[in-house]
Amino acid sequence: MLENNTRTELSALGEFGLIKHLTEHIELKNPSTIKGVGDDAAVINYTNTNTVTLVSSDMLVEGVHFDLTYVPLKHLGYKSVIVNLSDIYAMNGQPKQIVVSMAISSRFSLEAVEELYAGMLLACQKYGVDLVGGDTTSSLSGLVINITVLGECEKDKVVYRHGAKEGNLLCVSGDLGGAYMGLQILEREKTIFKENPNIQPDLEGKDYILERQLKPEARKDIVKLFSDLNLQPRSMMDVSDGLASEILHICTQSNVGCELYEEKIPIDSQTYDTARQFNLDATVCALSGGEDYELLFTIDAADYDKVKNLPDFSVIGHITNKEKGTNLVTKSGTVAALKAQGWDALLKK
Amino acid sequence: MLENNTRTELSALGEFGLIKHLTEHIELKNPSTIKGVGDDAAVINYTNTNTVTLVSSDMLVEGVHFDLTYVPLKHLGYKSVIVNLSDIYAMNGQPKQIVVSMAISSRFSLEAVEELYAGMLLACQKYGVDLVGGDTTSSLSGLVINITVLGECEKDKVVYRHGAKEGNLLCVSGDLGGAYMGLQILEREKTIFKENPNIQPDLEGKDYILERQLKPEARKDIVKLFSDLNLQPRSMMDVSDGLASEILHICTQSNVGCELYEEKIPIDSQTYDTARQFNLDATVCALSGGEDYELLFTIDAADYDKVKNLPDFSVIGHITNKEKGTNLVTKSGTVAALKAQGWDALLKK
Repeated sequence: MLENNTRTELSALGEFGLIKHLTEHIELKNPSTIKGVGDDAAVINYTNTNTVTLVSSDMLVEGVHFDLTYVPLKHLGYKSVIVNLSDIYAMNGQPKQIVVSMAISSRFSLEAVEELYAGMLLACQKYGVDLVGGDTTSSLSGLVINITVLGECEKDKVVYRHGAKEGNLLCVSGDLGGAYMGLQILEREKTIFKENPNIQPDLEGKDYILERQLKPEARKDIVKLFSDLNLQPRSMMDVSDGLASEILHICTQSNVGCELYEEKIPIDSQTYDTARQFNLDATVCALSGGEDYELLFTIDAADYDKVKNLPDFSVIGHITNKEKGTNLVTKSGTVAALKAQGWDALLKK
Repeated sequence: MLENNTRTELSALGEFGLIKHLTEHIELKNPSTIKGVGDDAAVINYTNTNTVTLVSSDMLVEGVHFDLTYVPLKHLGYKSVIVNLSDIYAMNGQPKQIVVSMAISSRFSLEAVEELYAGMLLACQKYGVDLVGGDTTSSLSGLVINITVLGECEKDKVVYRHGAKEGNLLCVSGDLGGAYMGLQILEREKTIFKENPNIQPDLEGKDYILERQLKPEARKDIVKLFSDLNLQPRSMMDVSDGLASEILHICTQSNVGCELYEEKIPIDSQTYDTARQFNLDATVCALSGGEDYELLFTIDAADYDKVKNLPDFSVIGHITNKEKGTNLVTKSGTVAALKAQGWDALLKK
């Protein structure tokens, strides 16, 4: 995957040469971006006094968050931006600028770094975000990418995790568990390839879940829909660690309980079928798989009419008072305490 | 250095537990910080419509930027914040918030991470900055720290690298080369220790240059002085890669030349003497050593009277037209082209 017809060593450019090479063709699109790459700091001017600035940061580490044996660099660049934008949408805001830091080992060629950067810039273009700065350095081992995103939101539209109220409907966009099942497919094919490099990978009929894993999107459209519908969610966060973990975050921070209905959890048929092939429970994959980058949010019950006919929203439960606990009502009607078995990067060794 | 009386494994807390443990006692000090750690993004409200937002990011990688065999974790945490604040001061701004991402290997104990964090928070406290968010993940190899800093500056006070004008005086704060000589001392003692672990390190009389390396400060005071003196530099950047490299950045971006006078370069006597002990030229250390985090700037010649008696400013040359080139006038009066041999992290393997 790191092969290419030409290979230019990074040391031939040096740090400043590399940054210049990667960034000189960047066109700044947002009026708020006054100065991008090229000085000690980027300069940003949010002129609307009615807005606040949102800032979030995510670090992706080779071998922990991604495996370059099956993740194309361009996809990795794209995804590394998406996971950050998702955090801004999860506040009901609009991402505007990103700052990219990378530690790159000398095994990377210039062409490889260009691929990675091309993916980042593609995501920037699609979501109307400016890449305004960062840091590029060497790594003694794996690739490390850190992206910080800045965004804007009208002051009274910011949605926190702590705003869920008893009686709120618990909703989620899109479907869940697909990214996790895509990862299982990729891991399986990697194992097979290691045993016999002549076997072609069997990815037939798995396009949707592979795309969920390799090239996820952030739900800009949902935030726009909230605005179009004049719908103000009470609490929200994005689903990066798994539905169960995120629901528990919202309930803990809002000091409430919940009832989540297993049968309401949106799962794509490809996710469902693949889970069955792997002898996995699709619900568990949705609850604990993570990396879906969907939006989990709660709304006033009175707003139900606004969302009930929308194809990409699911009402999956409701918020209760704290004493009732955080519960999953299974398809068979059993009530069980919701447990977070989310993907905890710190537990990976 | 990683030893401690008690050792708590990070896996005992998990990612969310660790973040909570490290951040729950953080007190937010800046009125602009609306929401810090604990949501998808931090929320910041710069209410002054006359200001712009500054943003900068730096990544520090173990084995490339620091060596834990002689850098105490608390000092590392402190320095990792300082190098970022320095970028905001270099724009003539005031840093207000930082976002911290860390990749930590399992060889670190909770107590070690606490030390690192304590250093970061100490720097935040000293410089009036809020730690508002970040990401904590695991690393398969070394420690990686990425800090993004946000700051503010009055719109018409921002100082870029590209503003130097012919006739400007070239100035620098403090003294140069000390951090580099401190590093030479630490590297020497490490080599000696490896050969014979019973020999005590000989750091006698090297306190100043060791502090320059291990616990640098950012020049908040100089930015305040600019304000007090009503002095608007025409161009500015901080000295992180070495004086020569930084002067060339300013000249290239401003499309000008310069004359730098060797005899005017401020070098502390401890730096000078240590360079001699190491058979190094102190001027070369100042030109190419880096990590000084002093401010390099140019001012109108008419402003000379404002700075001429200040103890911590040195006028080291002047800006010429581009055709004259970027030159160093040596102590013997020879004129030589200025060369950047700065510390280029990408060339390190």
